[in-house]
Amino acid sequence: MIKTIEWTDSGIRLLDQTKLPTEEVYVTCESWEEVAEAIKKMIVRGAPAIGVAAAMGIALGTRDADGDHVAELRREFEHICEEMGETRPTAANLFWAIRRMQDKFEQCSELPVGKLRQELVAEAQRIYVEDLALNEALSKHGATLLPSSGAVLTHCNAGALATAGGYGTALGVIRAAVESGKKLNVYADETRPFLQGSRLTAWELMKDGIPTTVISDNMAGALMRQGKIQAAVVGADRIAVNGDVANKIGTYTVAVLAKENGIPLYVAAPWSSVDLECPDGDHIPIEQRAQREVTHVGATRIAPEGVKIENPAFDVTPARYVTAIITDRGIVRPPYAESLKKLADAAVALKAS
Amino acid sequence: MIKTIEWTDSGIRLLDQTKLPTEEVYVTCESWEEVAEAIKKMIVRGAPAIGVAAAMGIALGTRDADGDHVAELRREFEHICEEMGETRPTAANLFWAIRRMQDKFEQCSELPVGKLRQELVAEAQRIYVEDLALNEALSKHGATLLPSSGAVLTHCNAGALATAGGYGTALGVIRAAVESGKKLNVYADETRPFLQGSRLTAWELMKDGIPTTVISDNMAGALMRQGKIQAAVVGADRIAVNGDVANKIGTYTVAVLAKENGIPLYVAAPWSSVDLECPDGDHIPIEQRAQREVTHVGATRIAPEGVKIENPAFDVTPARYVTAIITDRGIVRPPYAESLKKLADAAVALKAS
Repeated sequence: MIKTIEWTDSGIRLLDQTKLPTEEVYVTCESWEEVAEAIKKMIVRGAPAIGVAAAMGIALGTRDADGDHVAELRREFEHICEEMGETRPTAANLFWAIRRMQDKFEQCSELPVGKLRQELVAEAQRIYVEDLALNEALSKHGATLLPSSGAVLTHCNAGALATAGGYGTALGVIRAAVESGKKLNVYADETRPFLQGSRLTAWELMKDGIPTTVISDNMAGALMRQGKIQAAVVGADRIAVNGDVANKIGTYTVAVLAKENGIPLYVAAPWSSVDLECPDGDHIPIEQRAQREVTHVGATRIAPEGVKIENPAFDVTPARYVTAIITDRGIVRPPYAESLKKLADAAVALKAS
Repeated sequence: MIKTIEWTDSGIRLLDQTKLPTEEVYVTCESWEEVAEAIKKMIVRGAPAIGVAAAMGIALGTRDADGDHVAELRREFEHICEEMGETRPTAANLFWAIRRMQDKFEQCSELPVGKLRQELVAEAQRIYVEDLALNEALSKHGATLLPSSGAVLTHCNAGALATAGGYGTALGVIRAAVESGKKLNVYADETRPFLQGSRLTAWELMKDGIPTTVISDNMAGALMRQGKIQAAVVGADRIAVNGDVANKIGTYTVAVLAKENGIPLYVAAPWSSVDLECPDGDHIPIEQRAQREVTHVGATRIAPEGVKIENPAFDVTPARYVTAIITDRGIVRPPYAESLKKLADAAVALKAS
């Protein structure tokens, strides 16, 4: 199994995703600051993985923080949570994980600080284990939607590398479909500028022996028009309650092309990607990243010095382009305002019962 | 002025487009074989530029060929023409230029071989000069279509670097619009895999002081949805008589996004890009290029070793997505089967009169 993130005695071990596919290198973050930096630099990336890494970073930082009293520890804890929240603004799972660690802190605030520290570590590890299970669940739900044979397009990387490991989300759906006997091959959009598709998706699908073809993002449309793609599956960084989806830049383009060519577009994400406080896509903050991602690949400069660059890391796909949203709680269909609310209410009822 | 191609005493001088934007290097092709190789390697690229370079290569090769008799020279001439025709299969202008050189050869086949050689060189130089003039003409026609202010998206490079020099086609339309006082800025799709947008379009527009922003191809859709793009202008490698357009891979995607967002898409090309023998886009041969263009940028490998790759260099945009085709003979509107035929007939009538 791909070990995207691991809690170890010496710190949080991350598979360095900036080095793939040519080098499989692991880095161990020995402080919460190193974890925050690893998220910013996209050594670890993908909304669910960011959530898990942030929770572990918070647990690590609080474990190692000075403070013999809860009040003291809370100050440091809240500082760490705040800094973690500044790393990547778009991923809902980041804020979900921080909130969950905060809830745990409050639940355990009467405990001795040593025990409180342990509880936070245990909570982060629980988030990790749950992520594996949730993604397996959503993968199996989603597998039923894919055709029994043909080609599936995916954009960016929503696989083991975007989560705690294991199935992943969009790639989990493909994996589960292949495990269930479907004869699928995958077109992986390379996904400029950070190239998560060619570097990461292709790498992990090859490990699984799933036939994969890397294409430039510009090629997906032509292949759809030629009838070579039967479905598209992508992940999500944040889903608004109306079903608008923020995901890697270029997802909107895939969605428009899919609609124009009569191809279903599925969004696969754990429930923690759904932001119940976000009414629609216009309210999702879109991260702008460094110009260098666009102007250079490795050491090679590919744009003239001094030219203006835009580099939004995500775009918003309006709900009307999304055929279904695949979550661990089940498959959600339009109208999303109703169907997402129903799932949210069901969970609250379940918790209360 | 940018000197994309130049006939010199020592050979055909080309601005090496594989080295831009970091190095402005010129290579001189001293034989027709070197010209053919430069076309294949995309040292010179862009449909009109390929046509001009091929004509010059044919003239050069025939000038330097052995043969004291027309029959002897014709054999070598036809061999060169055939080899030139094998360099890039999609660009209509290549075959148009070859045909024109063949017509000239037959017109002059009664002349002494020395004079025949001179006539071929003169014809290639005429094609060069005409290309400059035709593109200026189409640029001025097209300029009227652009808004008086706002942003124009372009894909690939259809500029001075894609033609004999000067205005270019799609970029010529933008240049002429700016010269006429319109306040435009340009979004240049970087255009993977060969990066003609970031490497070439940005480079030449910066030289002209036209405000240009380079974006990854994945970003154009999001910008359109945000209302940041008012028009899209692209070139063409071949236009079928029904108005279907073969152009750089990703053009179809731009076209679908433009339609979805109510943005006009203009195709700018000299009349020599119209293939009167091609009924529709399905009959346009699409070149597949080397995998390395997709797997590497410079020395950096960006896809795992052994992964499958597709690399079609062009796609076909069906006529229904094209708002207007801008040619040196005027602006053509749908239905293209009628409007293109009318322009073709007018030219025949003009020639006959």
